[in-house]
Amino acid sequence: MEDWRATYRLLAHCKHIFHGRSSPNFHNSKRFCSSGHRYHFNQPSEPINPYIGNYQQEFQTYKQPSLSLGINQRYRCRSHYRCFASQATIIQRRPDFSTISSEDVSYFKKILGERGVVQDEETLDAVNTDWMRKYKGTSKLMLQPRSAEEVSQILKYCNSRCLAVVPQGGNTGLVGGSVPAFDEVIVNTSHMNKIISFDKVSGILVCEAGCILETLIAFLDNQGFVMPLDLGAKGSCQIGGNVSTNAGGLRLLRYGSLHGSVLGLEVVLANGTVLDMLGTLRKDNTGYDLKHLFIGSEGSLGIVTKVSILTPPKLSSVNVCFLACSDYASCLKLLLDAKRKLGEILSAFEFLDHDAMDLVLKHLEGVRNPFPSSMHNFYVLIETTGSSESYDREKLDAFLLHSMENGLISDGVVAQDITQASSCWHIREGIPEALMKEGGVYKYDLSIPVETMYDLVEEMRVRLDASAKVVAYGHLGDGNLHLNISTPQYDDNILSQIEPFVYEWTSKHKGSISAEHGLGLMKANKIHYSKSPETVQLMASIKKLLDPNGILNPYKVLPPSLFSKAEIYTE
Amino acid sequence: MEDWRATYRLLAHCKHIFHGRSSPNFHNSKRFCSSGHRYHFNQPSEPINPYIGNYQQEFQTYKQPSLSLGINQRYRCRSHYRCFASQATIIQRRPDFSTISSEDVSYFKKILGERGVVQDEETLDAVNTDWMRKYKGTSKLMLQPRSAEEVSQILKYCNSRCLAVVPQGGNTGLVGGSVPAFDEVIVNTSHMNKIISFDKVSGILVCEAGCILETLIAFLDNQGFVMPLDLGAKGSCQIGGNVSTNAGGLRLLRYGSLHGSVLGLEVVLANGTVLDMLGTLRKDNTGYDLKHLFIGSEGSLGIVTKVSILTPPKLSSVNVCFLACSDYASCLKLLLDAKRKLGEILSAFEFLDHDAMDLVLKHLEGVRNPFPSSMHNFYVLIETTGSSESYDREKLDAFLLHSMENGLISDGVVAQDITQASSCWHIREGIPEALMKEGGVYKYDLSIPVETMYDLVEEMRVRLDASAKVVAYGHLGDGNLHLNISTPQYDDNILSQIEPFVYEWTSKHKGSISAEHGLGLMKANKIHYSKSPETVQLMASIKKLLDPNGILNPYKVLPPSLFSKAEIYTE
Ligand SMILES: Cc1cc2nc3c(=O)[nH]c(=O)nc-3n(C[C@H](O)[C@H](O)[C@H](O)COP(=O)(O)OP(=O)(O)OC[C@H]3O[C@@H](n4cnc5c(N)ncnc54)[C@H](O)[C@@H]3O)c2cc1C
Ligand SMILES: Cc1cc2nc3c(=O)[nH]c(=O)nc-3n(C[C@H](O)[C@H](O)[C@H](O)COP(=O)(O)OP(=O)(O)OC[C@H]3O[C@@H](n4cnc5c(N)ncnc54)[C@H](O)[C@@H]3O)c2cc1C
Repeated sequence: MEDWRATYRLLAHCKHIFHGRSSPNFHNSKRFCSSGHRYHFNQPSEPINPYIGNYQQEFQTYKQPSLSLGINQRYRCRSHYRCFASQATIIQRRPDFSTISSEDVSYFKKILGERGVVQDEETLDAVNTDWMRKYKGTSKLMLQPRSAEEVSQILKYCNSRCLAVVPQGGNTGLVGGSVPAFDEVIVNTSHMNKIISFDKVSGILVCEAGCILETLIAFLDNQGFVMPLDLGAKGSCQIGGNVSTNAGGLRLLRYGSLHGSVLGLEVVLANGTVLDMLGTLRKDNTGYDLKHLFIGSEGSLGIVTKVSILTPPKLSSVNVCFLACSDYASCLKLLLDAKRKLGEILSAFEFLDHDAMDLVLKHLEGVRNPFPSSMHNFYVLIETTGSSESYDREKLDAFLLHSMENGLISDGVVAQDITQASSCWHIREGIPEALMKEGGVYKYDLSIPVETMYDLVEEMRVRLDASAKVVAYGHLGDGNLHLNISTPQYDDNILSQIEPFVYEWTSKHKGSISAEHGLGLMKANKIHYSKSPETVQLMASIKKLLDPNGILNPYKVLPPSLFSKAEIYTE
Repeated sequence: MEDWRATYRLLAHCKHIFHGRSSPNFHNSKRFCSSGHRYHFNQPSEPINPYIGNYQQEFQTYKQPSLSLGINQRYRCRSHYRCFASQATIIQRRPDFSTISSEDVSYFKKILGERGVVQDEETLDAVNTDWMRKYKGTSKLMLQPRSAEEVSQILKYCNSRCLAVVPQGGNTGLVGGSVPAFDEVIVNTSHMNKIISFDKVSGILVCEAGCILETLIAFLDNQGFVMPLDLGAKGSCQIGGNVSTNAGGLRLLRYGSLHGSVLGLEVVLANGTVLDMLGTLRKDNTGYDLKHLFIGSEGSLGIVTKVSILTPPKLSSVNVCFLACSDYASCLKLLLDAKRKLGEILSAFEFLDHDAMDLVLKHLEGVRNPFPSSMHNFYVLIETTGSSESYDREKLDAFLLHSMENGLISDGVVAQDITQASSCWHIREGIPEALMKEGGVYKYDLSIPVETMYDLVEEMRVRLDASAKVVAYGHLGDGNLHLNISTPQYDDNILSQIEPFVYEWTSKHKGSISAEHGLGLMKANKIHYSKSPETVQLMASIKKLLDPNGILNPYKVLPPSLFSKAEIYTE
């Protein structure tokens, strides 16, 4: 191992890389750099500081500034905005839905109290608008129930009155699913935010749907456990929203999808039935496992009110490194090597390209390039999590040495403490926010076999030429590309150059047009690019079975044309 | 570490422990023994042979003798047998189902050829009888389609003729689900056994439903990957059957349930529709994830014809140890410690009690007690899987040392090579077979919070007194108890002392009455012990939606009383 250690280059100027409180600098970070098979080192015998392993606690409390604002403030600072109007030319409000009357409001006040019924304009404006400021509804009413029973009463009433409803958690969804398309009643779960139980023997957490992901992460950390789910929006998104979108995020590579870790749900159906599927057992094969219907159904089959989830024990040693690669092929080879060589300790493998890095450096306060002298074509963030600091670090070092020898890495830093690790993560997690600051953004969240994934990005660049910036990043370890096309303003001409091309390309390459964000309003009519007609038909039958009046999140997820009154509100 | 190594006691007489080809001896195994906080050692400075790590290949090809027999042979050697007649007093054949005519047979021969239509009595006798020889149907016809299209033609025809069907894979199911209750047509998937593709980059395997689990395990092993599923019946059970029962098995602790690792399915519905959900992507959030409906639906919603599954890379180092504990509390503490201390390398944590060991020693050829001088109250098998032999072994050693110091282990052996590891596994995997050889057996497969799990076993012993042997083993790491009550003959008096007590107890302790085996015929009417009425009602609605005529595996999974012609065939 000593050979590899000697390859570190401790950069004196490293301390200038990161500024600011939430973007601490890389002072003392270990940097290495290789060109081909030879590596330079300035201080070959510089001793290595012991790696400070357990930084989970502090790291987890990092928040994206925009996400930590209150609902009302959150939307004020945004500069670009596309009114829902242009979508309204595509779908029409279902005429059979009622509109809110003063009797309705009185009824809701009776069951929820004044506090649970929100009508003030400023708040409504915020909760009608999605995170990207791309979709905007015109709801006149937000309800904030405090229990499954209250949700049940709300839905029973709405169903009988044929009032459409949009379930809403943290409103961080990226496909227009969490805001009304028209004037649907917003049922927001923020007030249902209790942790109900945690079993330290089994690691099973039971909580209400409105618990904020970051709160759960911090709670578990204190108990010596980890949430099997983590994502950039953790400061605002709620576990109910995560379950309803089947959120993937940064830890899926290690802990698998929510279909594997969610053990039970309590869900309220459109007619008010409370479905108690809140199992707390690792294994239960008694009949059909219906909870899976609700995981990823984006509020169109029921409102999730409680979640039971299996959480793994926290492991004490976490390593993060941030690497530069000269081409995509090297990123891929690095991924394969990481899977083999880091094996059971690999916990994240994220990538971003030059343009994504460029945007983060431009827009996020205090972030600087970890490799200040040069920009590279690709960057990879690798995290390992294990139970032995020395062993994990040795393993990572051996892997990095090998990758440098093979010319896969052109430069890299290994975080030496939690502050530096946070800085690495900050670059990766800050991309969505940086994109928002750049202007309009067309977001595509694609699953594509990794070998061909980046071809799409390059084809898109050729296609759009100078008219837009094409930015790519994502969960490479899971084959998940976030393709973002950034333009000064939203522009329908550009949109027509992107779509349907991007969907057709993905479909042709056996990919999925939504890896993790869901379909929402944005892609309800695009489902056939990823699913067979028979499968979509069965989805529609299940929707009709569970929500015969179609009051739950209408116009979303499935093509509206599949439902009975098709002709009225179809594209 | 050297201290711990010195605690090993290499037993000279160890070579006599195991006999025979499939139960190789423990010669050279490392044995240690502690009483309380002091450990004895005969040869304290005996050097440790390097552990021979990668034994996956040979280990996986071990077969339970009875399971490796052909269909016809398999059932001849069994001694205990309970005719289905006594069940027939409980349910009645649905009179609206047709009976097979010669025209039906001609039609099936036309679409499947002579080879696909089986009518000879001996074979029919075998496939009408379940693995336990407890349930027996009277089907006159077994069909063996070779493709999804043939399955589609079969089901379309059966649906139009109202002919009931039982899907059958390897017929190793333990709840009477895989054999006809009456004269249902058996649709056996054994001829659909092709591996379709394997992607070495992503580890995604696509194969037909009839592939035998062990064949897939061996295939993947050659490719440097592992099947995330392993169970004692691997030599006979098929992946389609595994998916349809949502089989758990020996690796669930490490790799999670099939809901996490199955990426896609092709399923034929009752009306012959082929549902292509055969995704090969790690992530795909386009609409409802319908494949989960079929995982664990025990052939009652559709016939699985193809499976796509994510397989993890094979790790080179595997350790197995077999430990003795004096009480259940020690097993529990050992489990908690193992989760914490072995962390990411823990891959199995199985337990058996004194009575289970007793049976294995009595009935399985060549198996001897690894601790020959004494019997203990409990035994635990721990497996670790990781990527570093030295590190894993060090970790395991430290864990064992700590457990001995704390008095949790009273004796133990660590396998020194694949042969010894197989011997350890042979004890655990051989229990179901040993039970079969003892006489009649009432099998209960329960999920119960681990803290109270063994109380049920003890209460049951008090309840049954000398009239039956109560044997307990299972996947302790997953909270899964296999409670078996062994009697010389099947006896309804004893049954009435066991049931409903066992279900009521489990329900009262918030457990599940089927952790992994499913409900089948045995527990269709017991579902309410584990699921709420609303949930069961929704399951029935989904069954009606997908199979309106109820031809698929009737009388199984859900209480027959829930379906329209209830009064005719209800308990
Ligand atoms: C900066 C940023 C980073 C992100 N990173 C990731 C990522 O890495 N991986 C990923 O998968 N996603 C990511 N997302 C998007 C992701 O979908 C959401 O962050 C999250 O899962 C949604 O949770 P929420 O509580 O905000 O739900 P919302 O946005 O409020 O709602 C999302 C959908 O779920 C429904 N819903 C919400 N709550 C409920 C409920 N209780 N019952 C029924 N339906 C409900 C809504 O109707 C809507 O259709 C990111 C978003 C942002 C802004
Ligand atoms: C010795 C032994 C050890 C076992 N250990 C375990 C264990 O550790 N964990 C565990 O979970 N189980 C265990 N089992 C039981 C387990 O259910 C089965 O071994 C296995 O999963 C069933 O596969 P099979 O192909 O034999 O299915 P079968 O027994 O043929 O069928 C089981 C059920 O699935 C249905 N089915 C089968 N194939 C299809 C298909 N293609 N499409 C639709 N439906 C289908 C059948 O109708 C039936 O309801 C064990 C059984 C034995 C005999």
